[in-house]
Amino acid sequence: MVSKSQIKLITSLAQKKYRQQNALFVVEGIKGIREFLDSSYVLHSLYALEGVFEDQDTTEVSPAELKKISFLKTPQKALALFEIPKQRLEIKSGFQLVLDEVRDPGNLGTLIRLCDWYGIEHLICSEQTVDCFNPKVVQATMGSLTRVNLVYTDLETYLSKQKLPVYGAFMDGENVYRSQLPEEAILVLGNEANGVSAAVSEKIQQKISIPQFGSSTTESLNVAIAGAILVSEFKRG
Amino acid sequence: MVSKSQIKLITSLAQKKYRQQNALFVVEGIKGIREFLDSSYVLHSLYALEGVFEDQDTTEVSPAELKKISFLKTPQKALALFEIPKQRLEIKSGFQLVLDEVRDPGNLGTLIRLCDWYGIEHLICSEQTVDCFNPKVVQATMGSLTRVNLVYTDLETYLSKQKLPVYGAFMDGENVYRSQLPEEAILVLGNEANGVSAAVSEKIQQKISIPQFGSSTTESLNVAIAGAILVSEFKRG
Repeated sequence: MVSKSQIKLITSLAQKKYRQQNALFVVEGIKGIREFLDSSYVLHSLYALEGVFEDQDTTEVSPAELKKISFLKTPQKALALFEIPKQRLEIKSGFQLVLDEVRDPGNLGTLIRLCDWYGIEHLICSEQTVDCFNPKVVQATMGSLTRVNLVYTDLETYLSKQKLPVYGAFMDGENVYRSQLPEEAILVLGNEANGVSAAVSEKIQQKISIPQFGSSTTESLNVAIAGAILVSEFKRG
Repeated sequence: MVSKSQIKLITSLAQKKYRQQNALFVVEGIKGIREFLDSSYVLHSLYALEGVFEDQDTTEVSPAELKKISFLKTPQKALALFEIPKQRLEIKSGFQLVLDEVRDPGNLGTLIRLCDWYGIEHLICSEQTVDCFNPKVVQATMGSLTRVNLVYTDLETYLSKQKLPVYGAFMDGENVYRSQLPEEAILVLGNEANGVSAAVSEKIQQKISIPQFGSSTTESLNVAIAGAILVSEFKRG
């Protein structure tokens, strides 16, 4: 049984403001919840249909109750609240991906999965980048969020302090297939519509680009697709 | 002014059955409609707010009427119906991408844009792959659909007749970064959850895979992301 105040709390977490106020976010689905339970994330509360999570302290809910608290069109069998951890600012050396105002939750989720696949531990985001605890991002990451450390910070200040070479994805950059790429570097990807902002561009030493093989009328590649191809170029060795 | 029978026709086109019956599909937004108008696609009818498409024969609609016929949460200023062309089965030589039961409209849309970027003219899809005239696919392609020829066909029969080497994306394939890839080839991508089907697998000569750099618990890359990285490997030269 889920109380009115619990429903109010959970549904409020669709908004960043309330996620930050409560330091809580929502994970839906058994598989996703298991991945967060098996990680360093701290469980706050768990709502599940009868018999679904027998090894956990669960608030049992009916399918109708689950529908009320779920953010999904087709609710899963369980929904959990986890605590938002404090930002871990210590960045180890290695390859880093930096996002300058990526706004689409699906794109951020896909890029988090990409980092996880390629063993990129740190994803640095501008403060205007979509919140990684947005329910759509959490759902799109498929648990990868438990293995990638996201830091939201001012990119100009951050990039000024870095010693690694800073690359950025631009439409008019050097052909990435002909560039000599170092193993350790920082790669900056920009906003879906506007690319890398002018202020952040000033911190970039090398502009790179995926050459266009097709007709010149093709607008651009999606930021997650471009990010995947560029990360692959750095990592393929 | 849009009539009741027009509303009925347009909203029915959300379903493949009615798209096929009427040989019509929907494009929304001025930019997208312009791209289809500038292509070989044939316009059937155009609904737009006052003054939006002055160079075309338009049915003028109010914002409220547009809301009734639009498939978007936030309707654009115009909506058009175009004729579904006959399938062009003559495939030129060159690199071909083949999709075995890709189900997500967003993934298909992204893969069509990828083909467009890399100059891949033909995208061969199994009959169970999501319909490219699905409104979500059309919206996700950003006009690339006008430049890529999609063919829906039985993949076993199709692949049996091809002379180019057939590569397929598998979790346990050869490391793509260490493979010698020919310029002209066929690359098969599988379903989001199940990969390439058993029957189609038999037609594949070379299994390739994107090596995992991160923790082994990462599930997989999204099919559009994997497709982008693999196509890039074939095309980078």
